[in-house]
This record gives sequence, C-alpha cells and structure tokens, in this order.
Amino acid sequence: MRAEIISVGTELLLGHTINMDAAIVAAMLADLGFDLHHVQTVGDNPVRLAEALHIADERSDIIITTGGLGPTDDDLTKSTVAAFAGVSLVEDPGAAAALREYFGSRPMSRNQIRQAFVPEGAAVFHNSVGTAPGCALKLPSGGFAIMLPGPPAELKAMLASGVRPFLAPMASGVIHSTIVRTFGIGEGAAAERIADLMANANPSVAPYAHGGEMFVKITARAESGAAARAMCEPLAAEIARRLGDVVYGIDIDSLEAAALAALLAQRKTIAAAESCTGGLVAKRLTDLPGASNVFGLGLVTYANEAKEKILGIPASLISAHGAVSREVAEAMARAVRGLAQSDLGIGITGIAGPDGGTEQKPVGLVHIALDTPDGCFWRRMEPRGRYLGRQWTRERAASHALDMARRYLAGLAPDVEF
Amino acid sequence: MRAEIISVGTELLLGHTINMDAAIVAAMLADLGFDLHHVQTVGDNPVRLAEALHIADERSDIIITTGGLGPTDDDLTKSTVAAFAGVSLVEDPGAAAALREYFGSRPMSRNQIRQAFVPEGAAVFHNSVGTAPGCALKLPSGGFAIMLPGPPAELKAMLASGVRPFLAPMASGVIHSTIVRTFGIGEGAAAERIADLMANANPSVAPYAHGGEMFVKITARAESGAAARAMCEPLAAEIARRLGDVVYGIDIDSLEAAALAALLAQRKTIAAAESCTGGLVAKRLTDLPGASNVFGLGLVTYANEAKEKILGIPASLISAHGAVSREVAEAMARAVRGLAQSDLGIGITGIAGPDGGTEQKPVGLVHIALDTPDGCFWRRMEPRGRYLGRQWTRERAASHALDMARRYLAGLAPDVEF
Repeated sequence: MRAEIISVGTELLLGHTINMDAAIVAAMLADLGFDLHHVQTVGDNPVRLAEALHIADERSDIIITTGGLGPTDDDLTKSTVAAFAGVSLVEDPGAAAALREYFGSRPMSRNQIRQAFVPEGAAVFHNSVGTAPGCALKLPSGGFAIMLPGPPAELKAMLASGVRPFLAPMASGVIHSTIVRTFGIGEGAAAERIADLMANANPSVAPYAHGGEMFVKITARAESGAAARAMCEPLAAEIARRLGDVVYGIDIDSLEAAALAALLAQRKTIAAAESCTGGLVAKRLTDLPGASNVFGLGLVTYANEAKEKILGIPASLISAHGAVSREVAEAMARAVRGLAQSDLGIGITGIAGPDGGTEQKPVGLVHIALDTPDGCFWRRMEPRGRYLGRQWTRERAASHALDMARRYLAGLAPDVEF
Repeated sequence: MRAEIISVGTELLLGHTINMDAAIVAAMLADLGFDLHHVQTVGDNPVRLAEALHIADERSDIIITTGGLGPTDDDLTKSTVAAFAGVSLVEDPGAAAALREYFGSRPMSRNQIRQAFVPEGAAVFHNSVGTAPGCALKLPSGGFAIMLPGPPAELKAMLASGVRPFLAPMASGVIHSTIVRTFGIGEGAAAERIADLMANANPSVAPYAHGGEMFVKITARAESGAAARAMCEPLAAEIARRLGDVVYGIDIDSLEAAALAALLAQRKTIAAAESCTGGLVAKRLTDLPGASNVFGLGLVTYANEAKEKILGIPASLISAHGAVSREVAEAMARAVRGLAQSDLGIGITGIAGPDGGTEQKPVGLVHIALDTPDGCFWRRMEPRGRYLGRQWTRERAASHALDMARRYLAGLAPDVEF
C-alpha cells in the first residue's frame, strides 16, 4: 500500500511552524508497513490543496491530510476533499454530540459547529483531545483520503484510537526498524566501517547524524513483525561490534534513557550541578518517567555567588582558575554529590555563548566532571574551530555528561577523548 | 517569484527525523518576499526526486532542495539535479580545497571527495560548518535549482552567507510578519474576537495555537520592509487591545523572552525551585543569552529529602499537605528566593505523570507559586478532564510560572485564573 501525506497550513509555508505532524504520521505508517514515498505541504488554499489531492490520488492508495480541520475560517480541508470526491458535507450526529459535550454550558459559535460536518459517507474519528473530529473517505479512484487534525497532541491520540485500527487491516508486510545509537563518532567515520553492510537492500542500513549524535538505522520488511525484527537483530549486533563502545544502545530513545536505565538497574542515584547548561541535564533526565527513583537533586548555579553559597565552592578556587575550569567543574561535581548523598555527581561549567569568550577560553569551551566512588573524571569539550551556537553547545555538553555517566556505569573509562 | 522546497531524505519518510529544514528555508523565503506554495518531501530515491523536480519546475521559479549532499552513498541530490538539467558533475576546485583544509592531515575517503563535485555551471556555496558545499544551478526552464545540505546548522549558516545574497536581487516585494503572542486564551475564543480582521487579505490575520499558547500572525506584503511593517503595526495594536492582558508580547520570541526582558529592564533577579518541571524553567530562561544577569540560581528538588535539606522545607509541612500542594509550592518559592537573595522566587510542584496520581490529586495537577516583595502568589493548574501527557504538562507548568513573573513585572495580578 502506497501512502502519501498532505500537510495543510499556511503557517508551515511561512516557516513559523515546524511540520511535526508529517513525522508523527510517517512513523505510524512505517510501523504498519505502508510505503510512504511523498509528503506534500500546501497552504490554506483550496485550489492548491485540490491540485495536491490530484497528484496524490494518481500515485498513492492512501492520502492522509493533517491540519485545516479547526474552527477558524482558513480551515478548508474537509470541504476541499469533499469537492474533490464529488460529495457534500453533512453533519455527523456523533461528532455534533461530542462537540456539545465538550463545550458543556459554554456557547458554541457557528464556526465551532461547522467542525461536526464531514464529507458524506466518511467514517468519523473521535477527537479525544480537541474539538475537530477526523474522518476517512473512500475516493472515486478506490483509494482513501484520511483527514486528521493539525495539533500534534490531537493527531497522536487520533492515530492511536482511530486511524491505526482503520488502516491495520490494509497493511501488507510489516516494516521493522532497529536503531543503533552512538555518541562520539561522526557519520563519515561510521559509514566507512559499515560500508559493505550499507549495500544491503532488505534489511537496509543507513547512518545519519542528529543533534550531535550518530545513528545507524536498520530497516527490514517481512511477513510479520517478529520476522522483520529477526532480520534486523544480527545486523545490529554486527554494527555495534564494528563501532565499538561509542554505541550507547540499540533501540533506546536517548543518552538520558541509557543513563537512566543503567542507574535503575544498578540502583544508583545521580545529582547534577550545572552552570552553562542551565538545568538541561536535569530537564533531560526528568523528561523520563521513573527519573524520580534515581535523580533527587539538581542545582543550576549560574552565578558565582550561587556556586559559593549553595555548593560551598571556595571563592579562592574560582578566582585562581576561573569559573570555567576543570577545577571548578570537579568541585561542583563533588559538592552536589555530597549534598544529595548520591552515588554519582555531575558538574558542568562553560561558555555557551554567543558572548563571553576570551582567547584562552573561547566560546564553546565546557568542562564536564563526573564524581564517583572511584574518583572524579573530567572531559573538556571545545569547538574544533567552529562554534555551532548556544543551543548546540548546551545540548552537546549535557550529552557529554550523560555519556560519562553511562560509560562509568558500563565499566568503561568515562574520561575518553573524542 | 514562486519558490518551492524539495526535502530529500528517507529518514524524513520513516518518521525518525522532523523536517526542520523546510521551516528554516520557508522563514528565509518569507522574509525575502518569495511566495512559497509547496513543499515536497521524497526519499533518497533518484527516480522520485526527478519526478519531484519535474513537478516543481513546471510551477515554481526557484527550487530549493535540502538534504542528500553528504558523503554517504544515499546522497544523490546533486547527481539527480545534474541529470535533470542535462549537465555533468564536475569537481569544483574551491570546494575541493575547502574539503582538503577541513580534513587537514586526516585521510579523505572517495565518498568525502565526491562532495566537491557539483553540476557543471553551478554557483557554489561554501559550507562553513560541515563538509558538503551547496550550489545553485540555472535550469533549462529558466528557473534555478538550489541544492543545500540537510543538517540544520549547516543549512542555516549557508543561507546567511550564500543563499540569501544570491536570492535577494530576485526578490519582488517584501513580506513582513508581526506576531501577537498570548498565554491564557484559546484559538477559538481569540478568533471570535478578531473575526472581522481575519477577513483581510493584505495584511492577512491568522490565529494559531502552538505549545499551549495562541499566536496571531499578521502578514503584509509591500514594496519595502518598512512599508510592510507599517501596515502590520496598527493591526497588531488593535488585536492586542481586543485580546487584553493575555497578550505577553508582540514580535517577541517566547514567554521566557518576555519575562527576561522585563527583569532586565527593571534590574530584577529571579530564582526557581522546581520539582515536577525538573529544571525546565531554568533551562528555558538560560536558553537566552543574557540570562546570567537575572537568573543566578535554580534548584531541582525532585526528592522530598532535597526539598527538606536544600530548601529547608519542614518535613511536617510536606506530610501535612503532601509534596504536591499549594503550601509546599509557596514554601519552595519563598525558600529559593531567600537562598538566592533574588527579587522573585518560583516554586513548582506537581504530578507530571504518566503515573503517580490519586483521585484527589490527579495526574496533571501542578501548583505554581511566585514569591515577591508584595507577597506570594499562587496558581493551580489541572487537566480539564484530559491529561495531555508528561511533556505537555511540564511545558505548560513552566509557562504558567514564567507568565506569573511577566504579569507581576507588568503590574498585573499574577494569580489570575484561566
């Protein structure tokens, strides 16, 4: 089955909104084993949406639109699809009742009521998060147009409750992807070590870089999920073997998930004192359910006074070495570990920029320390001639800290250089 | 000038990578006054890329591709565009020299060297961040194909240094957008108050919801940027007047930017003690350059022991009211304000979920307090029957705290309910 996504919304073409919806729908389609070969994005314009529908209907079996179902006047997806299919819009009693329940005693405007109208003959998907229902309409070509809401939370809920059950019976063959995740090796270097495997068609092997990390995605198609998974497993193991201990996990979500899993498994706790990362290590760890079992305390000691007062770091140490120094990073790691009485303590201090650098301490320089029962470990991160911005510097420094923790817990040297 | 984006990359169609590039390019095009009516996404497949080029070449003057320029074998954009235009790939001496400089004494693989090849006759854009250069090729149709790298940091740098100067002379008319940003009003309610303005064509007025906030975008096209801006200004003022004090800024980046600007202007400082938001307030404030002038200390007291030990909150208070309570939120706000000796102190405690709720304290309940010289203010945030997940709850709770601070600094009641 060939599927195609049409994302509708002028805000996408003005560059203010990032198209999260396409990625969300694409992931579901991949999971069901549908082939997704095209995504089109058009504005809130019925003529161009109709053209996009024509193009999609000729080459794809399933068209999924996202956006343009809401109460404002620029939300024209359903009327355009109905016209394309040659049917009228009719009020769906179930959708109307759901809307009335959602609004309760509050008054409903004409635009709000319009949301309950769907193309005649369409199957309706309830919106458990927002107001606009989705729907699926059989097209004269024999394909389907599936109209879904734009807000990602509404879209995700509707995919799970309505769209996936609707599409699953049409799936032929199942795709399974396994991802080998690394921190500390580049895409080019990784590709050279696995070049022979990248020539495979099924499973396919593709490295890609994202957010300062490098992933290798292995994708297999088979009759069943179990069979596709079994095709991926030996390749993943071989790739992990070739790439070595920069691999922090297979089919794991993130470095913080790897660190959290190791902490939970070993019943160890961690605390963090952050300066230039401003709470990012804490934020990333506590993004994950279950973090409260291993993470009790995070300190964002942005000011020197906070480093002195809360962490007890001597002013003399800061004036001798500077706030951005190995010595202060290590003192922060030790101090927060002591305060939290945790097994591990992270200390980070650096210059995220864009200002504040000197010749000796350039913007992008960060010192990262991990205090442990086996001593305090340290990494120095610096821009290799190219400062990539404040956000990148902060994310990468937080990743270094999490990578040091996961390496320590795996019995690897945390202070490796790369 | 009609522009069109073709994003290339199988990772986009498998749903693993979100298409940031399209939004980045779209924003630049809008800024230059180019009309962007279509974005197409295709995989690493020369046949489908060629089809996409055909479609785009018929309806658009400028085609911008993102992705598929790198050193791995699936990077086929330049060869496909060259074939489409009927020219060969040739080595660009400048690009080859830049590559050699980038690699220094490290060896270069054949794939790395291939990156210096561009379609014959193309203008080359230097890549100041990564290795693959971009280029612009005049097509037989008279239009241009502009090939740009996929990694967002490389793309952004190349847009600024090469692509924008290349395209600017072709721009006809300039678009300016002004955004009115609100926290505390829904898209539907806002749309009803400004429905008459939304009928405008130039400037156009469109509300949209994003990340728990609601924005109104006003877009004007005129001969000059100044003229377009002047068309937007009175509309923005009128919209702000109608929406009232839920408007936290016009043409400002975020709630944290509004709070930071007010803190800087009034030379006030802020500190935060966070539980369920796990450092998100600290992270969002310190995302911004200049935060160090107003934000000295953040505490992530995830565990009750940390609340007691670091913040000095009596265990009796926690056991009497529960860690998730108005009383504990207020005590956290007061304590961190005292520790940091800051003007304002934030305290947040809640249940981000997905587990941990009870009938009396459901998942999604968060207490947010702001301690000030004028007393301690408090908001209670709870899911209105619909829990929208851990990330949404955390982001929204952090937004409430930042909104309380910006309201207090603007002389508005921080403890408003909505």
